[in-house]
Amino acid sequence: MNTTFKSPLSGIIPPLVTPLLGNDTLDVASLENLIEHLIAGGVHGLFILGTTGEEQSLSYRLRKEMIKETCRINAGRLPVLVCVTDTSIVESVNLAKVAADCGASAVVSAAPYYFATGQPELAEFYEDMLPELPLPLFLYNMPSHVKVNFSPATIHRIAENEKVVGFKDSSANIPYFQSVMYTMKDLPDFALLMGPEEVTGECVLLGANGGINGGANMFPELYVAMYNAAKAGDVKEVWRLQQIIMQISTTIYSVGKHGSSYLKGLKCACSLLGVIKDDFVAAPFHKFNEPERRRIQEALDRLPIENGKIIL
Amino acid sequence: MNTTFKSPLSGIIPPLVTPLLGNDTLDVASLENLIEHLIAGGVHGLFILGTTGEEQSLSYRLRKEMIKETCRINAGRLPVLVCVTDTSIVESVNLAKVAADCGASAVVSAAPYYFATGQPELAEFYEDMLPELPLPLFLYNMPSHVKVNFSPATIHRIAENEKVVGFKDSSANIPYFQSVMYTMKDLPDFALLMGPEEVTGECVLLGANGGINGGANMFPELYVAMYNAAKAGDVKEVWRLQQIIMQISTTIYSVGKHGSSYLKGLKCACSLLGVIKDDFVAAPFHKFNEPERRRIQEALDRLPIENGKIIL
Amino acid sequence: MNTTFKSPLSGIIPPLVTPLLGNDTLDVASLENLIEHLIAGGVHGLFILGTTGEEQSLSYRLRKEMIKETCRINAGRLPVLVCVTDTSIVESVNLAKVAADCGASAVVSAAPYYFATGQPELAEFYEDMLPELPLPLFLYNMPSHVKVNFSPATIHRIAENEKVVGFKDSSANIPYFQSVMYTMKDLPDFALLMGPEEVTGECVLLGANGGINGGANMFPELYVAMYNAAKAGDVKEVWRLQQIIMQISTTIYSVGKHGSSYLKGLKCACSLLGVIKDDFVAAPFHKFNEPERRRIQEALDRLPIENGKIIL
Amino acid sequence: MNTTFKSPLSGIIPPLVTPLLGNDTLDVASLENLIEHLIAGGVHGLFILGTTGEEQSLSYRLRKEMIKETCRINAGRLPVLVCVTDTSIVESVNLAKVAADCGASAVVSAAPYYFATGQPELAEFYEDMLPELPLPLFLYNMPSHVKVNFSPATIHRIAENEKVVGFKDSSANIPYFQSVMYTMKDLPDFALLMGPEEVTGECVLLGANGGINGGANMFPELYVAMYNAAKAGDVKEVWRLQQIIMQISTTIYSVGKHGSSYLKGLKCACSLLGVIKDDFVAAPFHKFNEPERRRIQEALDRLPIENGKIIL
Repeated sequence: MNTTFKSPLSGIIPPLVTPLLGNDTLDVASLENLIEHLIAGGVHGLFILGTTGEEQSLSYRLRKEMIKETCRINAGRLPVLVCVTDTSIVESVNLAKVAADCGASAVVSAAPYYFATGQPELAEFYEDMLPELPLPLFLYNMPSHVKVNFSPATIHRIAENEKVVGFKDSSANIPYFQSVMYTMKDLPDFALLMGPEEVTGECVLLGANGGINGGANMFPELYVAMYNAAKAGDVKEVWRLQQIIMQISTTIYSVGKHGSSYLKGLKCACSLLGVIKDDFVAAPFHKFNEPERRRIQEALDRLPIENGKIIL
Repeated sequence: MNTTFKSPLSGIIPPLVTPLLGNDTLDVASLENLIEHLIAGGVHGLFILGTTGEEQSLSYRLRKEMIKETCRINAGRLPVLVCVTDTSIVESVNLAKVAADCGASAVVSAAPYYFATGQPELAEFYEDMLPELPLPLFLYNMPSHVKVNFSPATIHRIAENEKVVGFKDSSANIPYFQSVMYTMKDLPDFALLMGPEEVTGECVLLGANGGINGGANMFPELYVAMYNAAKAGDVKEVWRLQQIIMQISTTIYSVGKHGSSYLKGLKCACSLLGVIKDDFVAAPFHKFNEPERRRIQEALDRLPIENGKIIL
Repeated sequence: MNTTFKSPLSGIIPPLVTPLLGNDTLDVASLENLIEHLIAGGVHGLFILGTTGEEQSLSYRLRKEMIKETCRINAGRLPVLVCVTDTSIVESVNLAKVAADCGASAVVSAAPYYFATGQPELAEFYEDMLPELPLPLFLYNMPSHVKVNFSPATIHRIAENEKVVGFKDSSANIPYFQSVMYTMKDLPDFALLMGPEEVTGECVLLGANGGINGGANMFPELYVAMYNAAKAGDVKEVWRLQQIIMQISTTIYSVGKHGSSYLKGLKCACSLLGVIKDDFVAAPFHKFNEPERRRIQEALDRLPIENGKIIL
Repeated sequence: MNTTFKSPLSGIIPPLVTPLLGNDTLDVASLENLIEHLIAGGVHGLFILGTTGEEQSLSYRLRKEMIKETCRINAGRLPVLVCVTDTSIVESVNLAKVAADCGASAVVSAAPYYFATGQPELAEFYEDMLPELPLPLFLYNMPSHVKVNFSPATIHRIAENEKVVGFKDSSANIPYFQSVMYTMKDLPDFALLMGPEEVTGECVLLGANGGINGGANMFPELYVAMYNAAKAGDVKEVWRLQQIIMQISTTIYSVGKHGSSYLKGLKCACSLLGVIKDDFVAAPFHKFNEPERRRIQEALDRLPIENGKIIL
């Protein structure tokens, strides 16, 4: 039986890193540790196989193992969202069926990312897929990776199907996100979730439902506290926590030269904090070498941490 | 004598549209009307010859006339910021001297916009220009138009010269803007101003100093009220006013197919509201034709307006 | 036993469209027809599961069926190149093993296309994959789809492994391609192949080894004739054939509004010419409707065709 | 009296570097030397104030001086083309009038480069400007700098005005250029000129009229020889000269990290060859420092040069 959730899905739903021991080897023990760490930290859901979870870098076999193990470990405690973004509609639906069979709560799909689609083509793609999906669907906007941006009108058109229950935005374009929120205001049960943790506080203050924040892999309590403060309209507390979040963002995610810095830094920090064992990053990337790892350790040392947790 | 201002410059500083009767004809009477309208609306400064002011589309003769007339009409009541963005450092400095002579308070400069520059080249460009500038300088980030984004480190490097007093961001990338705010936190007198009005409220809630919001040409009271609410940490009021701001954004700025929709819509609405006489837009653009003009009128009719003002 | 080929691989190697009857249904009869049509037309190799072959839109099951059936039908007559571009190195290698088992001659791989990689990361990705590959490798440059461009130095670095036997460029940036040709001149057995048919003639005139031209699905003789003329340095004949190729390019590939016009137009024309039965295009796209199909028929009617072939 | 030319303008028309002694100081003696060097080298026209000529970085005063001095020195020997690209239609027309007064042959204009325009806006911009222009007009496609690409249909629409006599393409997208050539084939007097020297040979082989090649500042004879060979259909000779052109391109234009490498390298080489005195580059750039200058000297040393000329 799938874990259900009350719409709109709200709160901090971390995009789990995928603990690996090799390109095709899931580290199940670390996954257990990570999930217990997150649940203990008070998060409101688990989001697996997203960009942070390296979905596209993993074999389908491993993706399925990840779905199965996550649902087994979670054991119905939290909603599980499974990213099934793919360039092949057939493979997306296959993954969604695995997710349903394992007891996940919903699937998440960014636009197909090889061919760029026009807006009508994008809407039709989801309209074609929805009848085949055994679970509710969240749309996922990630234009830097998929080369197309959902227009607010396209989101509204797709959301006319009630199986579509929310939207995660990782565009970093917040005037755009405000337009989406405004356009979707007639659908109050439709969840509006923010990707980048640097702006989740301000977006929740103005009505967003929560954040899918990578930093919560390291410090779930911090992001949950930020969410709670924003939800309560406590601007001063949001500001205070924002300073810590920005310290993380400008240090841990900024080591290294390429676009992969965020991912490598996050996994490296998780391993240094003991949340996962190894920071192996799947191809096309490699984990940090010692010099970068030391810089991540130094960044952690400057954070107000006690017993592995941010002092709140 | 130049009008001075207390740093950090704060509040709503509208980017004035430039009232025109032809490609090379300034409508001085409309400019008088516009400035009185803005001052009566409570704005905190005047920003001329920015993107909204069509600087690049205007002859240098007209740019100088605009500077001179604005300073004359303002008569020292508000700080006047003059955009001197140019591809030629010589012409930027020439305009800055005119601005100083006329009594403006500061100049504003986006990166040179023909050749794209690397970050060190960008810093050196400002370091070359600063000794020649007779007024304080605000940096202006407008990557969609100038093809380069100031890195937070570059901003900090340039701001080591104390003539550099603030930064306006029109990138729409708010995680980036949060990084800039965090990076500049050791310089509390450095003004951090937001371009897009759709996010000014949330950015001021979290510490930004104000907004350079085009919509204030139409409805200065609305944006001032939003600024005041955000400054006071009144989240509910910000949310309430944000709904009106988003209604404006998703209607008045969204008629027409090209990137010029914002500019044409804003000038058209200003003329329909009687703030300026004609909505002539300088080449390479033309003002809206009748069908688009009617759609703008309909959008205005749906706003809660009384006597030309938003009912607050 | 794999069909081998003499390096550098030269000539016209069409990127086969994948004949489909549904998102997950290969039309094997049409594939037989297509391959016989191409071989009769004198092409020098078969390139399957590329961009034109909709690799990314197809399930892995169907990709494997396509490899197996192509190799069966080809029966060793021509070199078969199998595109194994993937975001997962594990799945790329899996497909390469299937290709080897079926008797293909080589594999082709564009950069991983979800995460964008830096140049050193890109080189390392191929260096990681090469030991696992059972077949020679062609690199494939497709920056508009994969968001990264192989620098000439990166190509040279990867090509130090002798398993790497060529490069296909679909960047459309021909000054860049000239730089690649110049940089690779010390490896005369390394094949330099051009994607866009609009420039294959001129590139072969100046030393490229051939073209992977989509139009050859329709009219293999035309592209083979153009290749032969260019190879022989017959500029006048290249120019004459170029006019027909440009007529095709500016008509058949230009119906419809989105980036998918090329693919939809090509499959539509192939079906109208009887080369394949149905022009079904896999999700996220749909084949043309009747009005667009009529425009393709009209474009074909204006070409100098007799018995389904361009009159040469 | 203006120097006239026979349409279509054909051959090598170098985009002159602007010899400078400071941001606002033209080096007239070097300009004289450069022009005599080019005329002695057999070029077919002079193109001033283009991208290579740093038009946008120069004050209007200096631009006018450059026009006046060039026409004086040229003294009617060659057609002079003056780039008047601007964001302000008023300033473009002002420069065109200066050009006409000084005896130039034609003006050249890329799209306005601050606001990006849609295709109909782009056509209207030129249709507005043409009645004001006292000289024939060449269109100039430079999408990397101006953010918009002329569609072939837009070029054809603008060229319906017979004052429009040609098109220079610096897009580097040669399938696109082939489409332009094909689309314009009904206007045989319309000149089709290529910017990047790396592809001028192949484009002239297939029908283009010539090249506006920066390298001709250094070695006019080389580019003229390449043009002549291509015009004569001598593929082998084009190939032979292409190797030297590619050696220049991959060495002299590739020192330094930013997009400015081409400009800095070209000016540096010109000064090392004695064609101009100083390689001062106007803001926002600086000329190369000693280490980069040494690398340019080394690149020159590896070229087959005798008495400052490439041995042909």
